[in-house]
Amino acid sequence: MPHIQLPEGIPGIASGFAYRPETAKPMRDLAHVLLFEPGNTGSLTSGERELIATYVSSRNDCYFCQTSHGAVAAHHLDGDEELVLQVKRDFLNSPISAKLKALLAIAGAVQQGGKQVTFEHIAEARRHGAGDLEIHDTVLIAAAFCMYNRYVDGLATWQPEDAGMYRKMGEQLATSGYAR
Amino acid sequence: MPHIQLPEGIPGIASGFAYRPETAKPMRDLAHVLLFEPGNTGSLTSGERELIATYVSSRNDCYFCQTSHGAVAAHHLDGDEELVLQVKRDFLNSPISAKLKALLAIAGAVQQGGKQVTFEHIAEARRHGAGDLEIHDTVLIAAAFCMYNRYVDGLATWQPEDAGMYRKMGEQLATSGYAR
Repeated sequence: MPHIQLPEGIPGIASGFAYRPETAKPMRDLAHVLLFEPGNTGSLTSGERELIATYVSSRNDCYFCQTSHGAVAAHHLDGDEELVLQVKRDFLNSPISAKLKALLAIAGAVQQGGKQVTFEHIAEARRHGAGDLEIHDTVLIAAAFCMYNRYVDGLATWQPEDAGMYRKMGEQLATSGYAR
Repeated sequence: MPHIQLPEGIPGIASGFAYRPETAKPMRDLAHVLLFEPGNTGSLTSGERELIATYVSSRNDCYFCQTSHGAVAAHHLDGDEELVLQVKRDFLNSPISAKLKALLAIAGAVQQGGKQVTFEHIAEARRHGAGDLEIHDTVLIAAAFCMYNRYVDGLATWQPEDAGMYRKMGEQLATSGYAR
């Protein structure tokens, strides 16, 4: 049962958004810019961004966020749900680029705390071709999901376990984005 | 030295905002609604909101955020910088309301992770008069500062230690808010 009276029948973060539309708008807008809007030249793909969001949500043990963003990621990755699971389980041995592995290491550090990001993390990402904007967005996606995840679980929102619902949500978010 | 090339001479989060205005806007808007806009009836004062932000930033060891929001809080609290320090150091023994103590306990749980918020935390806050909106905003302020703090430190932004600068910043944010 949620800690406060949230609108019933609305899953996860959407129930908090419905409860407080004034804070929902900037939170939706931030996700839209960070995850959905066409990246500037040389920036991350939406699939990469969603994998970072999914990985951080998994490390924060947030069922709703890792499942919904995992579904968005899978949609961007031609339906490859197995790859999403591999990245959550052991990204270093998953078939993703060395650059994305280095960025996921930065995201994992941010999940622990901002000061955990070292010059070595950054140097490793640059060695594999990451530029300033990709590093910036990786840090901010990881930081933002430390917010979204805590919001979802800190209110004890309703988080159904219907895989079909998440797949449908994933398709919708992947094609339409997060802003209203 | 920051991990990426941020505009020089701009302190803390403002350098990240100047680097990427597209993400700055929703991040500023969220802070404005959560911390500055006149609360709905029965909601937290700006001083209480800023104390929650300061406390969470202190627990996350973010110098820039705890100092700047501590200065905003002090401005709202008739310049009582000592109270801000007491809340950071040992809020249970500081001269604040029992309700705010219970809400700070919720914020401290959120800082650790969303699932750390228990029904006992919520019951204690309600016992001291907290309503749904105050609990919601406490959870979201704490969650949001887990983002802002990680953004500031995850980019290794420049964080000057000039107390006068923070006092001036505190006055400006307390009177004008966060949106542009």
